[in-house]
Amino acid sequence: MALRTLSAKSAAALDQELMSTGAFSLDQLMELAGLSVSQAVFKLQPLSKGKRVLVACGPGNNGGDGLVAARHLFHYGYQPTIYYPKQSKNELYQRLRKQLEDLKVPFTEDFPHALKQTDHVVDAIFGFSFSGEVREPFPKVIESLESTSVPVLAVDAPSSWSIEDGPPSSGPGKRFMPSALISLTAPKPLVKHFKGRHFLGGRFLSPDMAEKYNLDIPKYEGLDQVVEVPVESGKL
Amino acid sequence: MALRTLSAKSAAALDQELMSTGAFSLDQLMELAGLSVSQAVFKLQPLSKGKRVLVACGPGNNGGDGLVAARHLFHYGYQPTIYYPKQSKNELYQRLRKQLEDLKVPFTEDFPHALKQTDHVVDAIFGFSFSGEVREPFPKVIESLESTSVPVLAVDAPSSWSIEDGPPSSGPGKRFMPSALISLTAPKPLVKHFKGRHFLGGRFLSPDMAEKYNLDIPKYEGLDQVVEVPVESGKL
Repeated sequence: MALRTLSAKSAAALDQELMSTGAFSLDQLMELAGLSVSQAVFKLQPLSKGKRVLVACGPGNNGGDGLVAARHLFHYGYQPTIYYPKQSKNELYQRLRKQLEDLKVPFTEDFPHALKQTDHVVDAIFGFSFSGEVREPFPKVIESLESTSVPVLAVDAPSSWSIEDGPPSSGPGKRFMPSALISLTAPKPLVKHFKGRHFLGGRFLSPDMAEKYNLDIPKYEGLDQVVEVPVESGKL
Repeated sequence: MALRTLSAKSAAALDQELMSTGAFSLDQLMELAGLSVSQAVFKLQPLSKGKRVLVACGPGNNGGDGLVAARHLFHYGYQPTIYYPKQSKNELYQRLRKQLEDLKVPFTEDFPHALKQTDHVVDAIFGFSFSGEVREPFPKVIESLESTSVPVLAVDAPSSWSIEDGPPSSGPGKRFMPSALISLTAPKPLVKHFKGRHFLGGRFLSPDMAEKYNLDIPKYEGLDQVVEVPVESGKL
């Protein structure tokens, strides 16, 4: 049975509902999202496979999830490096950045160089609110992710992909296929174009919200904040 | 080697520093604290030992940690019930309560009755800012916890205990010895009077802060947000 997907429009509505009638704060949701991303990294790339993780963060909430994930990864024993070229002035993101600076996690401006010196990449550049064209300085970043042999975990969406339609028909990202994807709360329609390991995070969704948005709540194991969707992409 | 302890005054200063220069929000810290409490419950009382958990919440931050823990416990498959007689008007606590109501987690006003129908109790009544006398309606609650045979996990402090000196010399709590304790960030001095299983949570403390406050960062396993301090109480 395929996991039901959530369109970009519905994902935005669900987030809005979680933060209004659902009474969650963005701080809380981002902490839980970033925690689930960090757990997916740990399951894909245990410390024995290399500690260096390059976390590429975009200017919005997807980037915020990356910043939180990087902090947890530090505490697990990884050595994260952050690429965060378009830093939001939003107070929450500034705080998340400060929390990393206090851990002495390095920030880099040279993505191609950092990519040569890492064991694993987290693509937290664009999430479900992405549409249209990839803006500077990200086209070259996505081109280097397209051609790298380093494993890449994309957060919610491979950056540059259309949330509904998958890879762009031209330009950066046309051949971008990350080795793994973590869908937050529910897979987006793009998942049908994805080939790789697929995780789901969002162990806070109430049964009522799942029903309202016509979503599946998968069976998480133990204390896990992520679950791997095992057989083929998008299937339970 | 004994884990170094943190006085009530230093614990308050550390919290304040985390939320000012440390750039954490209370939402974030409480989410992580409650998550660690929920993980300690899971390790002490796996689902196979009974799903019913009674979470007793006080009016302050300790109670907020309990509300967060109860939400995570629900998602693990437990059946939490909340006793929360002095509900704060603080917006954060109201949101945490709403998140539980949306999961249809029941709130009870009859603690003795609820205690007869549970497999496990979380004591999140008073934390490190407690001092002086136990106020109504909590004296009877603590007396019933003193005499129950149900396992009790205390959050940061067995409620009614002096943070520095342990059990009160008279009145409710004089003979209160929970079966387990989870210390948040660091054990408080009362730990030397505690006999039982002892966990530590707070896998977000930076090495710099640990050094400044003269604390130990224990070795957490894997993705755990808690670590059991194995040999005797307060010892590594």
